[in-house]
Amino acid sequence: MEKKERKIMVAVDESEESMFALSWSITNLISDTNNNSKLLLLYVKPPSAVYSLDSAGYIFSNETIHALQKYSTELATSVMKRAEAICTNFDATNIKIEKVVGTGDAKNVICSATKKLEADTLVMGSHGYGFFKRALLGSVSDHCVKYAKCPVVIVKQP
Amino acid sequence: MEKKERKIMVAVDESEESMFALSWSITNLISDTNNNSKLLLLYVKPPSAVYSLDSAGYIFSNETIHALQKYSTELATSVMKRAEAICTNFDATNIKIEKVVGTGDAKNVICSATKKLEADTLVMGSHGYGFFKRALLGSVSDHCVKYAKCPVVIVKQP
Repeated sequence: MEKKERKIMVAVDESEESMFALSWSITNLISDTNNNSKLLLLYVKPPSAVYSLDSAGYIFSNETIHALQKYSTELATSVMKRAEAICTNFDATNIKIEKVVGTGDAKNVICSATKKLEADTLVMGSHGYGFFKRALLGSVSDHCVKYAKCPVVIVKQP
Repeated sequence: MEKKERKIMVAVDESEESMFALSWSITNLISDTNNNSKLLLLYVKPPSAVYSLDSAGYIFSNETIHALQKYSTELATSVMKRAEAICTNFDATNIKIEKVVGTGDAKNVICSATKKLEADTLVMGSHGYGFFKRALLGSVSDHCVKYAKCPVVIVKQP
């Protein structure tokens, strides 16, 4: 019997933990061959405003801001490539994958994305958002557990 | 290929939300017929000390305490029966079920149980622990997301 398509959103970032969360999702939520699931890979880039003033109060030059923006875009590409490689490793050829890159405060972008893209489940690491995390106040996963409407899986690296 | 047994612990209580979390677990984590999973149904009774002084500071008589203890035991039985009925409804005859009743502060008992019973995943509602929740400080699910070592799924009733 064909099951209704389920959308599993995995919030990926440059952390090992988020890649582990992705593997966990494939093993535990998608591995079933009779499984009509779509994997939504979501990466959130920080808003540019984050670069212009760092947490210690330094104001960066335009060149630095430009370099950081470039780095951020490259990081997004690199994280997505790594995530796709993990999916390929699972020999999960029947998994439909959709890549989504958002920009903004990760916790808000992730919660809105679950709603907008009608995710059935959100999976994420417990820490995450490595490089830029100093700039983002509070825990992303705490916020998502509280405010995302769908079930949220918080995965910790063992 | 036979998969390694996975233990899915579902923290059940008298809330609709926890029963929804149980249904979610069966549909999303266990439905696969090739799935070698064991469902651990955990119910936590409050410690008797909780009855002797309620949150408003009233001290209860021995009769009241006894009645509350009896109620608590009956509640545990009733919640477990309801949980089992849900499993039966799913026609999930291949699911191995183990029922566990603990006593104490729910958040600590649940976290210890995941460790002691080697749960691979913990699933719970976001609120939970209805009748006695006034007596328990803080959110049970927040605590488990933070302190349980395994992946934690927080399910909200839609």
